[in-house]
Amino acid sequence: MTGPVLADSVRFAGDAVEILDRRVYPFEVSWVRCATSEDVAVAIERMVTQSSGPLFAATAGMVLGAREARHEPPDRAAERLRAVGARLVATRPTNNHIRDAVHAVLSATAGAGLAGDELVVAVEAAARAHDDGYRARSAALGGHAASLLADGTRVLTHCWADAYLIGTVRAAQAAGKRLEFVCTETRPYLQGARLTAATLVEMGYRPTLITDGMVAAALSDGLADVALTAADRVTLDGHVINKVGTLGVALAASAFGVPFYALVDAPDPQAPTAGDVVIERRDGDEVLHTLGRRTAAVGVRGHYPAFDVTPPHLVTRIVTERGVHQPDQVKESL
Amino acid sequence: MTGPVLADSVRFAGDAVEILDRRVYPFEVSWVRCATSEDVAVAIERMVTQSSGPLFAATAGMVLGAREARHEPPDRAAERLRAVGARLVATRPTNNHIRDAVHAVLSATAGAGLAGDELVVAVEAAARAHDDGYRARSAALGGHAASLLADGTRVLTHCWADAYLIGTVRAAQAAGKRLEFVCTETRPYLQGARLTAATLVEMGYRPTLITDGMVAAALSDGLADVALTAADRVTLDGHVINKVGTLGVALAASAFGVPFYALVDAPDPQAPTAGDVVIERRDGDEVLHTLGRRTAAVGVRGHYPAFDVTPPHLVTRIVTERGVHQPDQVKESL
Repeated sequence: MTGPVLADSVRFAGDAVEILDRRVYPFEVSWVRCATSEDVAVAIERMVTQSSGPLFAATAGMVLGAREARHEPPDRAAERLRAVGARLVATRPTNNHIRDAVHAVLSATAGAGLAGDELVVAVEAAARAHDDGYRARSAALGGHAASLLADGTRVLTHCWADAYLIGTVRAAQAAGKRLEFVCTETRPYLQGARLTAATLVEMGYRPTLITDGMVAAALSDGLADVALTAADRVTLDGHVINKVGTLGVALAASAFGVPFYALVDAPDPQAPTAGDVVIERRDGDEVLHTLGRRTAAVGVRGHYPAFDVTPPHLVTRIVTERGVHQPDQVKESL
Repeated sequence: MTGPVLADSVRFAGDAVEILDRRVYPFEVSWVRCATSEDVAVAIERMVTQSSGPLFAATAGMVLGAREARHEPPDRAAERLRAVGARLVATRPTNNHIRDAVHAVLSATAGAGLAGDELVVAVEAAARAHDDGYRARSAALGGHAASLLADGTRVLTHCWADAYLIGTVRAAQAAGKRLEFVCTETRPYLQGARLTAATLVEMGYRPTLITDGMVAAALSDGLADVALTAADRVTLDGHVINKVGTLGVALAASAFGVPFYALVDAPDPQAPTAGDVVIERRDGDEVLHTLGRRTAAVGVRGHYPAFDVTPPHLVTRIVTERGVHQPDQVKESL
């Protein structure tokens, strides 16, 4: 299926992996060339890609790792691949997609004594299977999410929900439902103003953009009927960890009687509750700049918790590939 | 008293009025020259100044208006001055400072049959008296606000509270109290990242900057002890109308047990409740840009309610020149 540019933003190009640079999209359509698995790890750390992107970058990084280990004997190759995986997992701690992608590739190839081209082929197949599985789960999730949206619903988004949002929009379109969108710009990286907005325009909408501080006013004024975000992680007891700002969206939604839906392929079986999730703290300097230009006065320091934690009582429903769940029952979806 | 640059940002320069351009401060220290009262009105509309600035710009605009009417007979001069006042009042509807400044100058000079230099001198005196009165009220307010802040308090600010914040900080400093500040950047104009941050740096602090979407996470994580904003208008029944985003600050403060204090020289006797206040809707294009540069994808439309309305039950105290009030008792301060 031909889709929005961001639906396919990690690609192989000969010996290298190319990752669409989401820091500048859609103003520039620029691909960062990663010749090595280490290049992929650095690209993830530097926010070249984000949201669903690191999952695809991680499986591609594992393929590069297998190629780098091609001339090693089986034991050394397996060890080297595990090290590549550990490096990729260490890039960003909050979303579990990288961890699970690395685990999937390692599990599919471990203990088989593979080396050389056999190892590369096996890792490529495992990577492709994991990518395909995620796309299928996102499409299934999208169908469930669309079932919550009546014809004509005005949807408030925060940040960029990537494959989940694309799946939801595709399912709504297939069902003939009209939707409208209000998007927060999502500072400091402006994923809402750039990625969500550009992709929704590509898919035929004309979204309304608001600043992050306008969410409460917008919901108080009846500008949207539902709030819908991705979740980078959902714990077994229904906490939603997502891009910082989501907690404010949920508080405003709760205060003004607007349902808040969080989308995730599955809750994390390794995270019973919010204390089990590492909240990434990024460099505060990122808050002092906008698209590379200094926008804060000299003499201040920035503070940048990249994610926040929304407690289950502020979440109306969690939508996974399995269906629509009450937050306190989401673990039963596993 | 020598103060921060922004404490004195409207000045006379020969025949003209110069207004510090807050759209670019502190990156550029640029004064917009207004040769006529109409120039002043346009400068206010275009956000050359904001917060307390339009009050001083309005009284200065009335002085220019008196000079423009200098050669008219008394009746025509008075009529012309009323028209200048009406033009200034029409620039921005939500804050009542412009309305009250124009009214003060007109009241002090009406019916006296003044013309020529006498009119100019009288308007200059009335303008100066109104400016001085506002500075005195802001200083008094600052003393009351500082009384709410214990030594070591960490204060979350939103937007730029101008004379009220300067008054509060001066009073806290005079009392030997140490304070720390966490400032929201306040999109789309970044008043927090630029004006509040630069002024606090000038006054000896090193503020922490967060994006507007981080307020709930910051208060949930215990990053600040109180939330403190100005109010552009306070109604007699205790609604706080202020820069959009204030409602989200108040919701988060309420959810996480942080006191929220709103500062205003006085509630508006002409506004019994929130329905009596016009919420300015500015051009949505302003949301699509950051400091003049396009930061949103093509194809979206921006939405920009410049203010929001916080109901009394979310406000801990309203601080006026008269003292510290429960929101539902603020009208008794008149």
